[in-house]
Amino acid sequence: MHRTKVKVVEEALDANNTIAAANRADFDRAGVRVVNFMSAPGAGKTTLLERVVADLPGVRVGVLEGDVQGSMDADRLASLHVPVTQLNTDPGFGGECHLDANMVRSALSALPLDQIDLLVIENVGNLVCPAEFRVGEDARVMVSSVTEGEDKPLKYPLMFRTCDLVLVNKIDLLPHLDYDLDKFLYYLDQVHPDVPRMLVSARTGEGLDGWREWLQSAATPEGALA
Amino acid sequence: MHRTKVKVVEEALDANNTIAAANRADFDRAGVRVVNFMSAPGAGKTTLLERVVADLPGVRVGVLEGDVQGSMDADRLASLHVPVTQLNTDPGFGGECHLDANMVRSALSALPLDQIDLLVIENVGNLVCPAEFRVGEDARVMVSSVTEGEDKPLKYPLMFRTCDLVLVNKIDLLPHLDYDLDKFLYYLDQVHPDVPRMLVSARTGEGLDGWREWLQSAATPEGALA
Repeated sequence: MHRTKVKVVEEALDANNTIAAANRADFDRAGVRVVNFMSAPGAGKTTLLERVVADLPGVRVGVLEGDVQGSMDADRLASLHVPVTQLNTDPGFGGECHLDANMVRSALSALPLDQIDLLVIENVGNLVCPAEFRVGEDARVMVSSVTEGEDKPLKYPLMFRTCDLVLVNKIDLLPHLDYDLDKFLYYLDQVHPDVPRMLVSARTGEGLDGWREWLQSAATPEGALA
Repeated sequence: MHRTKVKVVEEALDANNTIAAANRADFDRAGVRVVNFMSAPGAGKTTLLERVVADLPGVRVGVLEGDVQGSMDADRLASLHVPVTQLNTDPGFGGECHLDANMVRSALSALPLDQIDLLVIENVGNLVCPAEFRVGEDARVMVSSVTEGEDKPLKYPLMFRTCDLVLVNKIDLLPHLDYDLDKFLYYLDQVHPDVPRMLVSARTGEGLDGWREWLQSAATPEGALA
């Protein structure tokens, strides 16, 4: 029984990887770099995008918004005059907890790939399954808010292990929390030694220059994702 | 293609409900009340349990800890001399993002049901799938931290709609956040009108008397869950 279950899942992941490769080929043909942007619910993904996407000189950004339901985040980003495509996961499963390659593929025709250089895919807020499903991205960025506690790298290791950049958000709240930043960074290094990390506050703007520069660089062939 | 997928999921949920009913019958036979305790990662479930489980006069509490990996939360609770059973979800799926009835069933023999009155099942931190899988509980309690933003009821409606109590945690941080509590409560009422809610801070202790009393009452047949 157990072995059957594992087999089914592996086949599902194999199929996902095949479709992710097809997405990847389409993105390459269009010359679009793709970032899979992930975090727990409420860690600040949308605000971190709002703060920088309208201010990346020479880089045309598009956003694919993944949500179980609604379009609140897409509406916020569209007000910045950035092309935003909404992808809702609720028809499939009573609410899929992640985006997979096929969902992204189904949105390809709605994406203005010929008009953008960089596509940011804002995944469903979840620290487990989004890390298991490649969607055709060049890089994975995750946000870990300091309000979530220091132990998250040890509790959700796959997410932290498979990302290319960790944004440690809401650092303006550090004076008001029992949060040991050194302990978090120690745990982070246990699961993903030397992964690039940036301490930021989407609220105060602290550290956002680095995040802006990383995205800018990600959009160029010789940049952060090379 | 799409219809096939939905069918498979419905069958999986049907099977889950059958096993959840078997769990429910076993809990009833043992006279144990069961709370399914859910939230996003880092919302404060474990701390909210730490603060009250050792101080429920006349109620013997046990905890079933669901985590993808590790036993950090179980270790914290065991230090309070409460029986704790760890259930890790990583062998199944590369990390299941929720507990289901069968996982809980597989832990039944490890639970000291004859020595407890109330079992709290701390689910995997996730606002999507845990809400889809009944595990045999009498009640569902969810924690929504004010650091997660006001929009969560609209973005994860199933979780908010199917719970019997909402703990709004980390209210000590309200002076430091751009968070509109009235807006959150308005959104909450849109998806689940009049669901009981308590404003609490696991850090300062504010509001914890109400949470303690609710758990105390939940353990009695004529109490909160009646």
